Amino acid sequence: MSTKGKVAIIMGSQSDLKVMGEAAKVLEELKTEFTVDIVSAHRTPERMFDFAKSAKEKGYHVIIAGAGGAAHLPGMVASLTSLPVIGVPVKSSNSIDGWDSVLSILQMPGGVPVATVALDGAKNAGILAAQIVANFDKNVSKALTEYKESLKEKVISSADAIKENGWKAGKVGF
Amino acid sequence: MSTKGKVAIIMGSQSDLKVMGEAAKVLEELKTEFTVDIVSAHRTPERMFDFAKSAKEKGYHVIIAGAGGAAHLPGMVASLTSLPVIGVPVKSSNSIDGWDSVLSILQMPGGVPVATVALDGAKNAGILAAQIVANFDKNVSKALTEYKESLKEKVISSADAIKENGWKAGKVGF
Amino acid sequence: MSTKGKVAIIMGSQSDLKVMGEAAKVLEELKTEFTVDIVSAHRTPERMFDFAKSAKEKGYHVIIAGAGGAAHLPGMVASLTSLPVIGVPVKSSNSIDGWDSVLSILQMPGGVPVATVALDGAKNAGILAAQIVANFDKNVSKALTEYKESLKEKVISSADAIKENGWKAGKVGF
Amino acid sequence: MSTKGKVAIIMGSQSDLKVMGEAAKVLEELKTEFTVDIVSAHRTPERMFDFAKSAKEKGYHVIIAGAGGAAHLPGMVASLTSLPVIGVPVKSSNSIDGWDSVLSILQMPGGVPVATVALDGAKNAGILAAQIVANFDKNVSKALTEYKESLKEKVISSADAIKENGWKAGKVGF
Amino acid sequence: MSTKGKVAIIMGSQSDLKVMGEAAKVLEELKTEFTVDIVSAHRTPERMFDFAKSAKEKGYHVIIAGAGGAAHLPGMVASLTSLPVIGVPVKSSNSIDGWDSVLSILQMPGGVPVATVALDGAKNAGILAAQIVANFDKNVSKALTEYKESLKEKVISSADAIKENGWKAGKVGF
Amino acid sequence: MSTKGKVAIIMGSQSDLKVMGEAAKVLEELKTEFTVDIVSAHRTPERMFDFAKSAKEKGYHVIIAGAGGAAHLPGMVASLTSLPVIGVPVKSSNSIDGWDSVLSILQMPGGVPVATVALDGAKNAGILAAQIVANFDKNVSKALTEYKESLKEKVISSADAIKENGWKAGKVGF
Amino acid sequence: MSTKGKVAIIMGSQSDLKVMGEAAKVLEELKTEFTVDIVSAHRTPERMFDFAKSAKEKGYHVIIAGAGGAAHLPGMVASLTSLPVIGVPVKSSNSIDGWDSVLSILQMPGGVPVATVALDGAKNAGILAAQIVANFDKNVSKALTEYKESLKEKVISSADAIKENGWKAGKVGF
Amino acid sequence: MSTKGKVAIIMGSQSDLKVMGEAAKVLEELKTEFTVDIVSAHRTPERMFDFAKSAKEKGYHVIIAGAGGAAHLPGMVASLTSLPVIGVPVKSSNSIDGWDSVLSILQMPGGVPVATVALDGAKNAGILAAQIVANFDKNVSKALTEYKESLKEKVISSADAIKENGWKAGKVGF
Repeated sequence: MSTKGKVAIIMGSQSDLKVMGEAAKVLEELKTEFTVDIVSAHRTPERMFDFAKSAKEKGYHVIIAGAGGAAHLPGMVASLTSLPVIGVPVKSSNSIDGWDSVLSILQMPGGVPVATVALDGAKNAGILAAQIVANFDKNVSKALTEYKESLKEKVISSADAIKENGWKAGKVGF
Repeated sequence: MSTKGKVAIIMGSQSDLKVMGEAAKVLEELKTEFTVDIVSAHRTPERMFDFAKSAKEKGYHVIIAGAGGAAHLPGMVASLTSLPVIGVPVKSSNSIDGWDSVLSILQMPGGVPVATVALDGAKNAGILAAQIVANFDKNVSKALTEYKESLKEKVISSADAIKENGWKAGKVGF
Repeated sequence: MSTKGKVAIIMGSQSDLKVMGEAAKVLEELKTEFTVDIVSAHRTPERMFDFAKSAKEKGYHVIIAGAGGAAHLPGMVASLTSLPVIGVPVKSSNSIDGWDSVLSILQMPGGVPVATVALDGAKNAGILAAQIVANFDKNVSKALTEYKESLKEKVISSADAIKENGWKAGKVGF
Repeated sequence: MSTKGKVAIIMGSQSDLKVMGEAAKVLEELKTEFTVDIVSAHRTPERMFDFAKSAKEKGYHVIIAGAGGAAHLPGMVASLTSLPVIGVPVKSSNSIDGWDSVLSILQMPGGVPVATVALDGAKNAGILAAQIVANFDKNVSKALTEYKESLKEKVISSADAIKENGWKAGKVGF
Repeated sequence: MSTKGKVAIIMGSQSDLKVMGEAAKVLEELKTEFTVDIVSAHRTPERMFDFAKSAKEKGYHVIIAGAGGAAHLPGMVASLTSLPVIGVPVKSSNSIDGWDSVLSILQMPGGVPVATVALDGAKNAGILAAQIVANFDKNVSKALTEYKESLKEKVISSADAIKENGWKAGKVGF
Repeated sequence: MSTKGKVAIIMGSQSDLKVMGEAAKVLEELKTEFTVDIVSAHRTPERMFDFAKSAKEKGYHVIIAGAGGAAHLPGMVASLTSLPVIGVPVKSSNSIDGWDSVLSILQMPGGVPVATVALDGAKNAGILAAQIVANFDKNVSKALTEYKESLKEKVISSADAIKENGWKAGKVGF
Repeated sequence: MSTKGKVAIIMGSQSDLKVMGEAAKVLEELKTEFTVDIVSAHRTPERMFDFAKSAKEKGYHVIIAGAGGAAHLPGMVASLTSLPVIGVPVKSSNSIDGWDSVLSILQMPGGVPVATVALDGAKNAGILAAQIVANFDKNVSKALTEYKESLKEKVISSADAIKENGWKAGKVGF
Repeated sequence: MSTKGKVAIIMGSQSDLKVMGEAAKVLEELKTEFTVDIVSAHRTPERMFDFAKSAKEKGYHVIIAGAGGAAHLPGMVASLTSLPVIGVPVKSSNSIDGWDSVLSILQMPGGVPVATVALDGAKNAGILAAQIVANFDKNVSKALTEYKESLKEKVISSADAIKENGWKAGKVGF
C-alpha cells in the first residue's frame, strides 16, 4: 500500500475552498499526507464516479468531502467506495442557514455511512482523518498527541491573562 | 419520438412504494403511460447511472423520483439527464419529520433543477408529469381538464351536504 | 399552437425582479422564448385570475411564478390553469429566513401541484422550464445539452487551476 | 346593516370540519350568528372569488377561514374583501408538523392582513370574531363577559380540588 | 361611547417603536384614531394591568400590542380585557430569528385569542385594526376601500414600467 | 424566616399535573417542603398577581411554574417577584412539538430571568429547587448528595447486567 | 461558610467574554461577589473536573457557565457538583443560529438540571444567581429590590417621552 | 497492538440499547471485534473519564458512543482521547424530535471532532467503525466488500419483484 496521499480532500465547488482549506491546513500540522481536488456530484457526476471507484486503489485511506445546499457529494462518494468518508456541510450562499447542507449529509440511509462534522467544520474533518490514519501511522499519532496538548495550553494561557488583568481587560485588551 | 413509456417512476426502496404508488394511480387516471422501478442512489449507484443516462433514448419525457432521509436520488438523476426530473420527498422511517427529505431534494445548486413537490406528494408528482406531457399529447390534456373539473365537484358536493344537514352532522355523519 | 411566448415569468412584486431576472437570463441562454410581468396574488387578485385563466390560450406552455413570505402566487395560478407551474420561493425582506416562502409554495394539497425549486432558485426554474419545452422543441433541447456540457467544463477548469497552483493559491488568487 | 349572518366560517375541505367546528360551537355559546361553508382556494378558485367579493354585501362582518398545508384560503379571501379575516392554521394530514399551515397564513405581505390564531385554534377564532362583533352588539358583549368569568371559575375549581384531595389524587382521580 | 382613541398601540420597549411606528402611520392614512404608549409586561406588570383593565372604559375598540423574544404583552393584555387584541411579533435583537416572538404570541391557549400578524408586521396590524373599526365607522370603511385600490395601482404601474423598459431595465433602473 | 413551604409548584392547568407531579415527587425524596396549586396567567390573571406578589412574604424561597403553548406563567410570575423562578415548558396538546412552550419561557428579556429546564423536565425543576434551598438547609443538602450517589449506582448496575448477560440479553430481558 | 466568592462565572473560551461579561457587570450592580475564569469542557476536561468537584468546598453557592455550539460545559459541571448551575447558551460563530447552544444546554436528562437562560442571556444569568444568593444574604436581597424598581422607571420615563414629544419623535430623536 | 476489542460501543443509558444494538449486530456481520458498556456522562462522569483516558491503552481503535437529548457523551469522550469517536444521536423519549441529540453531538468546536451519523443511525456507526478498522485489517475489509454487494442484491431483487408482479402487487404483497 502506498504511503503517499493518505487523505483525499474533495469539494463540490471552488467557492468551498475557503472553508475546506482548514482541513488541509490542519492535516499539514498533523503530518498527514493529502491531496485537494474539485469534484462535483451534480455537474461532473462521471468524474465523481471515477474518483470514488478508484480511490482505494490509488492508496487513499480516508476521503473528506465538502458540499453545501442539497449536498450529495459525500453520500454519493460513500456509496461508491468502502473507504471511510467524512462529510463537511458547507454553509454555502444558496443554503437555508446551513440546515440543508447538514441534513443532506448526515441523514444517510442504513448501509452507507458518512462521518459528518459540524457546519463548516473542515478543521475537525482534518483532525478526524488524522485520528483514523493514526491507528496505523505512528508519526501522525504523535502529532495528534502534541496537538491535543496545544489546545489545552491556549485555554490555560487565556485563563492566566484574566487572572492577571481582570475580566474587564478582556473586553478591551484581548 | 416513442409514444410509449412517457413517464418513469423510480424510488430508492421498496418501502417507498406505499407513497409512490399514488403517482402511478393518478397517471393511470390521466391516461399517461408510465413504468415503475426500484433504483437506489446509495445502494445501486451504477444502476442509477445506467438508468439516468439512457432514459432519454428509451423514450421517457419525464422522470419522477422519490426518496427519503438524505434523499439523493432525484438530484443525482437530474445531474445525469436533461429530462425534467420531479422529486418526491418521502417521509421515511429514518427521516427527521421529513425536513431532511425535503431539503436534500429541493435545495439543488444552480444548473441542475429538481421539480420538488410536497412531502409524500406523489399524487401531485403524477399530475405534474401529466401536465408536462399534455403540452404535446392531446389525450392527456383532455384527461387533465376533466380531472380539474372533478376536484371542483367534490368540494361543491360536500358544501351541499353541509347546507342540507348542518355543520354538526358533518362531525358525526361525513 | 403559437411558437412565441413559450414561458411566462411572473412575480408578486417589482422587488422580486433581482432574483427572478436569473430565470430570464438563463432562458435567453437556452434559446427559449419568454415574457416577464408583475402579477400580485394579494394586491391584484383579479389580474392574477385573468392571467392564469388565459395563459394556455395565449400559447404559454410553462409558467414560472416567484413570490416571498406567505407566497400564494404560484399555488393560486396553478389552481386556475392546467399548465405546469414552477414556483420560486423568494427570500424577501419580510420572510422568516425563507421558510415561509418555501413551505407556502411547496406544500400544495393533492390535486394542484407546483414544481418548486430551491430558495431564490430562479435560474433553476428557467432551466426546468426549458427542459419541459425541450420535449417538443429541438433547438431548446440542443441548447440544454450544450449548457450541461459547460457546467462540466467550469468544474474541470477550476480543478486544473488547483492542480497547477496548489490549494493555497486558491485562497488568495481565485 | 343586516343583523343576520355576522360571521362566515369557511374551510378548504370537509376534513377540516373536525377542527373548525370548534369555532361554530363557541360562537353559539357567545350568541353570535354564523354560517358554515366549504370553499377551496385551490380546487374552487372561482367559488372563493365569488364568496369573498360578495361577503360584505351579504352582511358579514368577519370571516373565519381555516386551511392546512400551503394554506392560501385565508390570505386570498383577505385580498378580495376589506372585511377582517381570521385565519386558522389547520394541522392537516399533509402538513409538516403544522409549520406550513402557520407560516402560509401568518406571513402575509404588507397591505393584506390575516388575523392568525394558534395551530388548530378554531375556538379562539370564534372568540376573536365575537370580540370584533361585540364592538357594536351588546348581546355578544355581555356573553363574552360571562364567558371570561367561566374560564376563571374552572381554574379556581380545579385549584380547590387539589387543596382538598392533594396533588397525588390529581394524578389518578381528576 | 367616546369617538376618540379607537385604537391603542402599545409596545414593550422604546426600541420597538421603529417597527411599531408603521401601525401608527397606516392608521393615520386610514383615518382611524389611535394613541401610542410604552407598556412592558415584564418590567411594569402593574401598569400593564391597569392599562388592560381600563381600556374598554376609556373607549378603545381594539388594542395593538407589539413585543419580541418571550413576548407576553399581547397575550397578557388579552387575558385582562374582552377587546380584540392584535399581536405584532417583533424581531428584537434578543430574538432567535423571530421564532420566539411569533410562537409566544400566536400559540395562545383556548379561551384567550390574540390576532397575530406577520413578524414585524405592524403595518398589517394597523390595517386589521382599521378593518375592525370599519364595521361601525363609515369614514374608516371608505378610507380602506381607497387604500385597497392604491395597492392595485402600484402593482399595475410597475408592470407597465417593465412593459415599456423591459425586464433588464428593472435590474438597474427601478 | 419560615421553615415551611419553601418551594411553590404552580401550573397553568390541571392537565399539566401529570408532568408537574414529577417535581413534587422528587422534592419529597429530597426532603424539601413544597405546595402545589393551579394558577393560570391567561384565565386567572388577578390570582396570578396576588400569588406572585405575596410569595416572598409567605415564606417561599423558590417558585416552580409549568405551562405549555404560549407559556406566559413563569415569566409573568418572575416579573412580579424577586424570588428565583424555575420554568417548566410543558408539551401540552396545543403545542407545536414543544417549541412554543420552550421559547416563550426561555427567551425572557434582560432584567427578568426564568431558570428554564428541559421540555417536560419537571423532575429537574424539583432537583434545581432543592439545590437552591440546599445553600441554607443542611438536610436538603445531605439528601441531594445521596440522590446523586443513587444515580451513579443505577448506571453501574445496568452496566453489570450487560457484563453478565451480554448485550443481546438487554434487548429482550431488561 | 466563606462569605467570599459566592458566584463563579466560567466560560469555554475567551471569545465568550464579550457575552459573559454582562453577568459580571450585573453581579457588581447587585452587590454579589463573583470570580471569572476560562474552563473548557472539550479542551481542558481535567481542569473542568477539578473546578467542578472543588467548587462547593471553595465556598461557591452558584455557578454560571457559558458556552456555544455543542455546549457541554454547563451540563458537565452540573454532573460533577450539587451546586445550582446556570447555563448561558452563547451564539458563537460556529453555532447554527444558536439552536445548538440552546438545546445542548437546556435538554439535560432527568437527574442533572441546568438552569438555562435565554440565548446570550448572561445578564439574566447574573440576576438569577443574585436571586439565589438573596435567599440568605440581605444586602443582595435589597439590591435586587432596587434593581427591579429601576427597570420600571426606565419604562415609565420612555413612556413619558412619547407623551411629550409624540411617537414620531421617537423615530428620529430617541 | 492488541488484536482484540477493536471497537468499544458505549451508551448513556440502558434504554439506548434498543437503538445501539444495531451497531453491535452489524459489527458481528462485518467480523469486527467489539465490546458493549453503559457509561453516562452526566450520572457517572468519573467512570466516563476513566473509560475514555484508558481506551487507547486497552487496545481500542474506535469508540462508538450513543446518547440522546443534551447528548454530551460522544463529545466528552472525544475530548479525553485521541481515538476516532463516532457519535450516534439517539431520539430518546426526552428529546425534541431528535434535534437536541443531533446538534449536541454534531456541532463540536474546532479541535475536538465527533464523527456523527444519522439520528438513531447505530447501524451506520457500526459500518463506519468497520471501515476505519478495514484500513489495517484484511478480514474486515473483505467482509465490507461482501456487505456492500449484498445491499445491491436486495435492491435488484425487489426491482425484479415489481417487474414480475407489477407495482400494485407491491402495495399488498410485499
